[in-house]
Amino acid sequence: MTLKGSEREREDQCINTIRMLSVDAVEKAQSGHPGMPMGDAALAYVLWTRFLRHNPKNPRWFNRDRFVLSAGHGSMLLYSLLHLTGYDLSLDEIKQFRQWGSRTAGHPEYSPDLGIETTTGPLGQGFANGVGMAVRERYLGQIYNRPGFSIVDYYIYGMVSDGDLMEGIASEAASMAGNLGLGKLVYLYLDNGISIEGSTDITFTEDVAQRFASYKWDVQKVDGNDCDQIGKALEKARGEKTRPSLIIARTSIGFGSPNKQDTSGAHGSPLGDEETKLTKERLKWPLEPPFHIPDGVLEMFRRAVDHGRVMENDWKQLFENYAARHPGLAESWRAIHEGKLPDGWKEGMPEAEDQPMATRSVTGRVLNGVAPKLATLIGGSADLAPSTGTHLEGYGDFIHDENGRNLHFGVREHAMGGILNGMALGGALIPYGSTFLIFSDYMKPSIRLAAMMKLPVIYIFTHDSIGVGEDGPTHQPIEQLAGLRAIPGLTVIRPADATEAIVAWELALERREGPVALIMSRQKLPVIDRQRYASAANLTKGGYVVADTARDTLELILIATGAEVHLAMDAHTTLTKEGVGVRVVSMPSWDLFEGQEKGYRDTVLPPSVTARVAIEAASPVGWHRYVGIEGDTLCMERFGASAPAAVLFEQFGFTVDNVVKKGKALLGRRGGD
Amino acid sequence: MTLKGSEREREDQCINTIRMLSVDAVEKAQSGHPGMPMGDAALAYVLWTRFLRHNPKNPRWFNRDRFVLSAGHGSMLLYSLLHLTGYDLSLDEIKQFRQWGSRTAGHPEYSPDLGIETTTGPLGQGFANGVGMAVRERYLGQIYNRPGFSIVDYYIYGMVSDGDLMEGIASEAASMAGNLGLGKLVYLYLDNGISIEGSTDITFTEDVAQRFASYKWDVQKVDGNDCDQIGKALEKARGEKTRPSLIIARTSIGFGSPNKQDTSGAHGSPLGDEETKLTKERLKWPLEPPFHIPDGVLEMFRRAVDHGRVMENDWKQLFENYAARHPGLAESWRAIHEGKLPDGWKEGMPEAEDQPMATRSVTGRVLNGVAPKLATLIGGSADLAPSTGTHLEGYGDFIHDENGRNLHFGVREHAMGGILNGMALGGALIPYGSTFLIFSDYMKPSIRLAAMMKLPVIYIFTHDSIGVGEDGPTHQPIEQLAGLRAIPGLTVIRPADATEAIVAWELALERREGPVALIMSRQKLPVIDRQRYASAANLTKGGYVVADTARDTLELILIATGAEVHLAMDAHTTLTKEGVGVRVVSMPSWDLFEGQEKGYRDTVLPPSVTARVAIEAASPVGWHRYVGIEGDTLCMERFGASAPAAVLFEQFGFTVDNVVKKGKALLGRRGGD
Repeated sequence: MTLKGSEREREDQCINTIRMLSVDAVEKAQSGHPGMPMGDAALAYVLWTRFLRHNPKNPRWFNRDRFVLSAGHGSMLLYSLLHLTGYDLSLDEIKQFRQWGSRTAGHPEYSPDLGIETTTGPLGQGFANGVGMAVRERYLGQIYNRPGFSIVDYYIYGMVSDGDLMEGIASEAASMAGNLGLGKLVYLYLDNGISIEGSTDITFTEDVAQRFASYKWDVQKVDGNDCDQIGKALEKARGEKTRPSLIIARTSIGFGSPNKQDTSGAHGSPLGDEETKLTKERLKWPLEPPFHIPDGVLEMFRRAVDHGRVMENDWKQLFENYAARHPGLAESWRAIHEGKLPDGWKEGMPEAEDQPMATRSVTGRVLNGVAPKLATLIGGSADLAPSTGTHLEGYGDFIHDENGRNLHFGVREHAMGGILNGMALGGALIPYGSTFLIFSDYMKPSIRLAAMMKLPVIYIFTHDSIGVGEDGPTHQPIEQLAGLRAIPGLTVIRPADATEAIVAWELALERREGPVALIMSRQKLPVIDRQRYASAANLTKGGYVVADTARDTLELILIATGAEVHLAMDAHTTLTKEGVGVRVVSMPSWDLFEGQEKGYRDTVLPPSVTARVAIEAASPVGWHRYVGIEGDTLCMERFGASAPAAVLFEQFGFTVDNVVKKGKALLGRRGGD
Repeated sequence: MTLKGSEREREDQCINTIRMLSVDAVEKAQSGHPGMPMGDAALAYVLWTRFLRHNPKNPRWFNRDRFVLSAGHGSMLLYSLLHLTGYDLSLDEIKQFRQWGSRTAGHPEYSPDLGIETTTGPLGQGFANGVGMAVRERYLGQIYNRPGFSIVDYYIYGMVSDGDLMEGIASEAASMAGNLGLGKLVYLYLDNGISIEGSTDITFTEDVAQRFASYKWDVQKVDGNDCDQIGKALEKARGEKTRPSLIIARTSIGFGSPNKQDTSGAHGSPLGDEETKLTKERLKWPLEPPFHIPDGVLEMFRRAVDHGRVMENDWKQLFENYAARHPGLAESWRAIHEGKLPDGWKEGMPEAEDQPMATRSVTGRVLNGVAPKLATLIGGSADLAPSTGTHLEGYGDFIHDENGRNLHFGVREHAMGGILNGMALGGALIPYGSTFLIFSDYMKPSIRLAAMMKLPVIYIFTHDSIGVGEDGPTHQPIEQLAGLRAIPGLTVIRPADATEAIVAWELALERREGPVALIMSRQKLPVIDRQRYASAANLTKGGYVVADTARDTLELILIATGAEVHLAMDAHTTLTKEGVGVRVVSMPSWDLFEGQEKGYRDTVLPPSVTARVAIEAASPVGWHRYVGIEGDTLCMERFGASAPAAVLFEQFGFTVDNVVKKGKALLGRRGGD
């Protein structure tokens, strides 16, 4: 497309408006990152005005293109675009950039009603989210699209920086995206040659084009300030159906700043009064007022509103026709978008059997039991499906151009975390991912973001303790539970047996308000006789009395989770025989327990009973909340070791004798020390 | 080199001995990974018998080549080699594979006296460790080598698997190794086309050769069972001085097993009786006894002992001549290898000044103060040196072919963690790395391994709370402290002011028994008047009474760390005025505090005083150990927000009023609730 002189001028004005709104907002906040929006405004302009299909007046329109600002520090670029194109983000909000209670946080925070598709900032995460979004687009399309009715048909665009590409999670996700041939994924790489410590030459001299070609991406190179080149590259990328696209755009950080352009000084600090002035002069921008939007610029950008309305209306019409032709599918569509599980979905849930069973084995039965009714249940494993039990039998693979339901994340836990987030964004899907608990460390930054965004991701973390056995300390989690439990909004559940595991799974599948981590044993565990002991349904309360004393006086409380509940119950038998008034509390989830009323919590753990022992084959950190200073813990205060699991439990003191001894010691009785 | 028929036969016997020792050990343990040693034995044989310069009778010989088995699940490959070449690892130990107390753990565990150079198993870690080892080799060579005296001159060989290369940490480390041009690094990539879930085709279809070429590695391809090809490739790799080498070796997992070769069934389970028999038949191996070593094979491998003695003696002679010529350097060499810091090193430590100072700012003064005396102090940042204060001024960069002291890890926290471990292995260096505390999540798996190996790595984690301010919740650590504190053997220190920060740094530099994480504030903090209050030297005890009550009765204890100590002290002033007997405990390090005798701990926190408030702008998980069930916490129970730091502290209740209120509430006084 060739522009006339006046059109070119208008284009420059539009691009400079993005730049200067960003500069002024950072300046007013005296905090933020001006360099990225200044450098990449032309790319954003071309993408948002010529390609992005969106409706500013309905950011939740299903079939919109997604935009991911993986380089989240450039948040003002996004806020500028949202304001200019007509989203519910006023200029006053932009003036409140980075202030308490504003909608313009330092880094973009997931706001589906505002057009912010995902929370970014920690580098590499947005890159992986976009891959997950593309998986979601393809998977939903596979389920719902019918000839003539492409009701799911959108692109995922992203802007990624040097820092994004340096992060390992991006490498993992890029490799997987190439394997999957995600043609709807189009990333602009903001190649500005500058990182915080200076020129990227000091650490990042790889050939990015060659690297992404090795992942089987389509790669193009453009001048990031040449709108025509950018447009042509985006056009070509949209036409590439079987490979993700990377457009390497050479840009200048801090574009327009006479003294800071192309330096790290433009990255993370306000330009300053003087440099702001010089920059405005250089770009022929009025020095006053700040937050200036030239005549005509807003109209130009706001065309997005009309376009968006038309596009959404067209889509609605299409959907109406679709609903007439495929009423069952349309009904299912509406249900999944309301987050409703279909009636009778629980019919597929398994019953616990009598014989001992590893809690990890429950997973396969649950997933395969409910999969026929829950078409939106899709996930996989970081190359540990056989060990974690997460394979959906008979549903095929989601690989290459196949659209089955089993994702193979490979040995890429971090990308799995980021991709699951992308799959969960926008609802509809119930994504899950599995690995050993120890490797939750590899994906921790993504788990945290799932919790922050309240995404309904299900993590299946098996091999949950020294019960791992021979694989040794590198594979035996110690501190992982404490770390996960400390994440606000992550529900961590470590079931004691198959009956608790089933209830935990039910809760996880129904929960839409945030991620759930299911912590499962490698080793077989007895099944608690629920006729004799309290119901496993109590798991939803987080903690409950599973075995109580028949005596008048309760003297001692044993609190345990997972495998160690059985140890506690065996000790309960011995202690009861010896005349101790003892209770066992199964405490599968601290956060669920803390969500109960104090009255209930005090029933389970009466304040008057201070003789308490917490038993868990993991770090003791956090358990004193329940045992207090006067109580005791039987936990792992060191790394594990390589030996058969039974030997390890014995060697590390997870024995009835030891529990009895600790309990008696608290009561000051003989047999304690 | 061309072999005669009988030599070829002997070679095959040697290779099959490695295979069958591995098969038998896994079979006896009924646990382990036979497929990798079976598949990669020829590679190992060629490397260990023709290239690796080592002395089995002195695994600590400084100038040995290093061997890293990044694919740590193939541990029996390494144990077989160690036994066969004459290390202190008996056949009986191999028969004790994966048993309690044996030297043959499930995954290799760092044992410098046994020839195990690093702990591996979690994939990708060994890959990064090797990069760190190569950094160490080059850096020490730069300091100590002199014309005619290459006393530091060794290669780092590694064996890496599909899984290693899928992990993001390997991508990060490979990119950095290419940038650094680490010619001494030679990796064999075990390209067997199989991962746990099946063919790598399901998830790993990238072009590895192209990818590593993009990182600027030298790449070759060989048949992993063709000893001549392997030898030639290793020869060429050794000659490549300015690029790391990747030799892509096509191998067959479970080589020799009629029914399991080239299947994931050979990966992680014993072959089983019948398949073991069939394999031995196929490889013309005696069925009995297990652990068979044919005549002549041991002699062949054990030539390493004589060779090793000669090589070490030659090197010793070289070193003697070197010491005669360069006595000062030789003396320094001996000192650093004994882990001694030079006399007077502390002279460069800064003094705290009166004016408020961020604890992060102390770092730059310490590092630059001691750097002239501590030549082995080397480190860098994951692209945050300006913010974390870790740049050594005037010492140049360690990049490309420059050998300065500032590493630029790029936005690659995980590789930084793994590389720091590799730099620390074998002692001599004092490596440090810095990033924001929030990004410790990205490198957590490497931190854990540093703790497990007891490596003297120093982590500098700044921007330690909501004090981050405007960058918002994605950048504000909440759960990170709890997670780090739960790692056995990691010393976590969060100093309250510049005076504590200086003591913490001194401790970190002197500590050789394990890693230290220094948790530093972004924001300025007042400096506690140590004339009036207790000495900062008390930091080494982990917790101490910084401000006490003058009253007869101690009623209330405020426990805090870092910035929140000042809040506690302000509340102390108010409460004291109001007649409350209150004490402030500064508790910079839980693990140091737990290392004190109970007598001391009880002096600081008298058991009789149960009214206690813990104050820390982080997750409360773990604090009840000190405040008990009856105490209270003022912590962060949610994610943070984007706003100026002062606003956040106010909004989240970190105010004197709130502390006073909480304290009084515990005492049942008016003003509490």
